[in-house]
Amino acid sequence: MKNTESVSLPVVRRLPRYYRFLSELKKSGIVRISSKELATQMGLTASQIRQDLNCFGGFGQQGYGYNVDQLSAEIEKILYLNNKLPAILIGVGNLGRALTSFLYDAKGIQLIGLFDKNPQRIIELNSELDVTNIVRLESFCAQHNPKIAILCIPSEHAQIMANRLVENGIEGIWNFCNVDLRLSDKISVENVHLGDSIMTLGYNVNNNF
Amino acid sequence: MKNTESVSLPVVRRLPRYYRFLSELKKSGIVRISSKELATQMGLTASQIRQDLNCFGGFGQQGYGYNVDQLSAEIEKILYLNNKLPAILIGVGNLGRALTSFLYDAKGIQLIGLFDKNPQRIIELNSELDVTNIVRLESFCAQHNPKIAILCIPSEHAQIMANRLVENGIEGIWNFCNVDLRLSDKISVENVHLGDSIMTLGYNVNNNF
Repeated sequence: MKNTESVSLPVVRRLPRYYRFLSELKKSGIVRISSKELATQMGLTASQIRQDLNCFGGFGQQGYGYNVDQLSAEIEKILYLNNKLPAILIGVGNLGRALTSFLYDAKGIQLIGLFDKNPQRIIELNSELDVTNIVRLESFCAQHNPKIAILCIPSEHAQIMANRLVENGIEGIWNFCNVDLRLSDKISVENVHLGDSIMTLGYNVNNNF
Repeated sequence: MKNTESVSLPVVRRLPRYYRFLSELKKSGIVRISSKELATQMGLTASQIRQDLNCFGGFGQQGYGYNVDQLSAEIEKILYLNNKLPAILIGVGNLGRALTSFLYDAKGIQLIGLFDKNPQRIIELNSELDVTNIVRLESFCAQHNPKIAILCIPSEHAQIMANRLVENGIEGIWNFCNVDLRLSDKISVENVHLGDSIMTLGYNVNNNF
């Protein structure tokens, strides 16, 4: 299904944020919201919101605003949140463990395997998954066909591991290693560069003195 | 010190990446690099690199390229990485623990306190810090004057806690809660929205089919 080929990355990046805000509104019992109100809450302009949502066919009704439930359900569909992509996590250190816990009730993704070079690493947390020795990555992928890999291993091994994952059919990498991976354009990579992020914050704080 | 008032946020955001690449080059023993080579490695254009670095007074020498050590040291200075900003972490759950470990040898920041409403939470890891009861936040801040707070508590408490932190002199928040905080413009916020990030990845993988 490619219903959104023409949608630009900035719009895609805003969708989870819309979804998040709409979920909050739902929780607060709000049934309907105007693009203006939504804009104020999200720090965007009403026209930007209308433009964004028009990319996907709009959903608002002139003068009536958006039905929160319906819009939320539509964005859920656009983001394929009901389609649980099978995922594996590589590197069950502190961060890997925290992510295992985080992903336990995440939408749109299902963790089906945890790998480490040291399979003795214990997972307490919410996971019912054992830690598999990384030497068994190939056979696991052949059998279970994961689409996403979460990479939280030491940076110096990241590129080699990423290549290996791609060779085994991985199509998207959630990269927590502090390096930029060089991969084919066909592979989606989402970087969470914690080091860059904290340096940016430090810069801003230092410059606000 | 406000040497960089006119620098735009996109340039600032690229600086940690420059720093990261230059650190890699240093490790590989590379002493000098042209803007063209650096551009190729970083997926930027040579003119963009020259422009970025010119914002801070340039450092290259026409025809000779950049001295890796020197450029790295300059960026370190610009990012104030030798100035350890005192930081506190709020919420010592799985993610908080992982971040404590991550920050142990991070540059530009020093963790001086860990807070939780349940101070019994044990920190093994690399930290020598005890977990302090959050009721003692005010007295701690008055005494130790932290500048940065790392927020990893349940989302529903994030805004109230952020307000409280700001009232206690915090100038920058590294926000891991899945909400956008509403704070004065004087407060620097750096969001790590893991939920948004994984949804974006899922969208991209689903659309590459």
